[in-house]
Amino acid sequence: MTSFRLVKTCLHSKARVGELVTPHGVVSTPVFLPVASQGAIKTLTPEEVKNIGIAMVLANTYHLYLRPGISVIERVGGLHKFMGWERAILTDSGGYQIFSLARLRRVGDDGVIFRSHIDGSEHHITPELIIQFQETLGADIIMALDECPAYDDGLEKVKVATERTHRWADRCQRAQKRRDQALYAIVQGGVFPELRRQSAEYLTSLGFPGYAIGGLSLGEPKKVTFAMIEETVALLPEDKPRYLMGVGSPEDIIEAVARGCDIFDSALPTRVARNGALFAWQGRQNIRNAVYSQMEQPIVADCDCYTCRSFSAAYLHHLFNCDELLAYRLATIHNLSFISNLVNKIRSAILDGTFVAFKDSFLADYQPTNEEVRLSQKQKWLKSRHLSQ
Amino acid sequence: MTSFRLVKTCLHSKARVGELVTPHGVVSTPVFLPVASQGAIKTLTPEEVKNIGIAMVLANTYHLYLRPGISVIERVGGLHKFMGWERAILTDSGGYQIFSLARLRRVGDDGVIFRSHIDGSEHHITPELIIQFQETLGADIIMALDECPAYDDGLEKVKVATERTHRWADRCQRAQKRRDQALYAIVQGGVFPELRRQSAEYLTSLGFPGYAIGGLSLGEPKKVTFAMIEETVALLPEDKPRYLMGVGSPEDIIEAVARGCDIFDSALPTRVARNGALFAWQGRQNIRNAVYSQMEQPIVADCDCYTCRSFSAAYLHHLFNCDELLAYRLATIHNLSFISNLVNKIRSAILDGTFVAFKDSFLADYQPTNEEVRLSQKQKWLKSRHLSQ
Repeated sequence: MTSFRLVKTCLHSKARVGELVTPHGVVSTPVFLPVASQGAIKTLTPEEVKNIGIAMVLANTYHLYLRPGISVIERVGGLHKFMGWERAILTDSGGYQIFSLARLRRVGDDGVIFRSHIDGSEHHITPELIIQFQETLGADIIMALDECPAYDDGLEKVKVATERTHRWADRCQRAQKRRDQALYAIVQGGVFPELRRQSAEYLTSLGFPGYAIGGLSLGEPKKVTFAMIEETVALLPEDKPRYLMGVGSPEDIIEAVARGCDIFDSALPTRVARNGALFAWQGRQNIRNAVYSQMEQPIVADCDCYTCRSFSAAYLHHLFNCDELLAYRLATIHNLSFISNLVNKIRSAILDGTFVAFKDSFLADYQPTNEEVRLSQKQKWLKSRHLSQ
Repeated sequence: MTSFRLVKTCLHSKARVGELVTPHGVVSTPVFLPVASQGAIKTLTPEEVKNIGIAMVLANTYHLYLRPGISVIERVGGLHKFMGWERAILTDSGGYQIFSLARLRRVGDDGVIFRSHIDGSEHHITPELIIQFQETLGADIIMALDECPAYDDGLEKVKVATERTHRWADRCQRAQKRRDQALYAIVQGGVFPELRRQSAEYLTSLGFPGYAIGGLSLGEPKKVTFAMIEETVALLPEDKPRYLMGVGSPEDIIEAVARGCDIFDSALPTRVARNGALFAWQGRQNIRNAVYSQMEQPIVADCDCYTCRSFSAAYLHHLFNCDELLAYRLATIHNLSFISNLVNKIRSAILDGTFVAFKDSFLADYQPTNEEVRLSQKQKWLKSRHLSQ
């Protein structure tokens, strides 16, 4: 069984520390989940991911259903064994991917017909099938099927999608057979506060062991993202974990923790790492910059990750400059370590009662990547998403 | 100081076991050196390379001179420190690369003027400069500058190149200042037995601590490769190590050991790994083959490498199928482990007096990659060499 226990709540913000007990270990929250859509954290072995201190990873039902197929993973003994990961796994239902990566053919209450982004083959999935797939994969936390609208869809379209998400959540809950997995529902509602509130209220009424906030950080302005998080969290039960989907930059995580979110996932730290953007306390550093070409020190002086303990910034710069595959690995190790350390510091600060001071100090030093860069990266990613994700 | 000691010679072949003592550890021969041209074994950390059991790696003066530049590595504290590798290193002089990768401008007795394959910039190097570069890099074994003709060059052209190689070897020897590095000369002579003999005799007369056999495995038929090795080895001193450059397939290593070679390097095991060709006792296996898509066992049942201990063939097949970067790493670990194990077995067999039986049994089981595939892979590589190597 997977259960959640609230350990401490911050007096001056909504930040909290909790404990998720899963069949594959205890996970302290706030927690960040690196993304292993296809059953691998890009460039890393499970051993390395564990050594970084990661307690749970995210895999994607959509990707794994298409390749290698659910039955292959079943045959090999389930997803944990297949990918050689002994700690906790959360599988996303694939709702977001079906609506963003695949070519949609038809969406109805019964389910979705889509064409694979890989080979164009046609597939028909239903909420019940998605639960069955996730029960076969065997993750510790599984997600209800949701319909995820684009961030610029109008009210009517988002309303239809949100209401369908509710009916699907209900069906997913009824379809669940395994009791050792926790099924989380996904709050939708786009950028419309009223829909967000309706969604949180309806899904809460069904009683899930955890709630995700979906459909955010898709290109809308950040203040809208945070406003929607606030609207939603206000209506979610205190004693259940809140999972903010697709958010993973250092500055966004700390802001979302302050607003009461517990679980995060995003491909951002690993994706930007492969582009040569390394997290540092003063913001993202571009390792390709000539300033690093002769730097004997590691990229982050006080970082205890394998990359910073072992190599100079000059070496990392050289590897990126030569397109050596090791570059992507070393940068990924650093970025995941940075996020993992940050989340550890956040937890300690909440427990010590110093979270707000820690947050203010972090954000004062950290130069966020500006909105234009952020959006253009997102666009670039959307174009090449089947390659890069 | 680097020294060599012959430990045992096979009674029924020219195979021998030796011990190279270097400032960075004792290296038992026969030994295989994986290729870290740019200061990294592609996809692997030094820690992993060490765990595989690799005792020495090869880096390339040509590549490192162009990127990041010799002075950058000097500044960071030398090549061992730059790449985080504490064991032995051999640096190739870059002769082969200048004559195969770069655009040649002029070759004369004084040196070579070439244009970089990366940015077209013009460079003038001399035997003295190449020694100076290698003394700054600080490898345990360094190589004299040689002129490497193409395998289909005519007698006259090869004669000129071989004689120039001799004059350059002499100058390299005179230029050497550091006494803790062993400088090896490179026997050339193409596919002409008389030139090979002249080259071995001349270079031997200068007295080097080790001799390399260069200019082979460049596309000539295998029986010619082996005939040239035999001609050359017959004239090299018993008590000095013999380094066969650019040879690294399992079947070629075992044949060359039988002919008296001690040291090998090649990008082949790591390059074919990234193409999905994994070494097994019955020959190379293509992991992309559908036969592996559902295989619960590792690719090589009795292999004790990290990849085979940790993952099913089905998982590896899936990673290749999805172009996950982890695939290239896991395949590289397997192939280097296979070669390392093979070389260990060869050494044990020589020590036990069972080498010929071991060799015959290995070659009876091992289905060599046919000549056409081998040549077409070489051609493919020559076309994309600045990318893949």
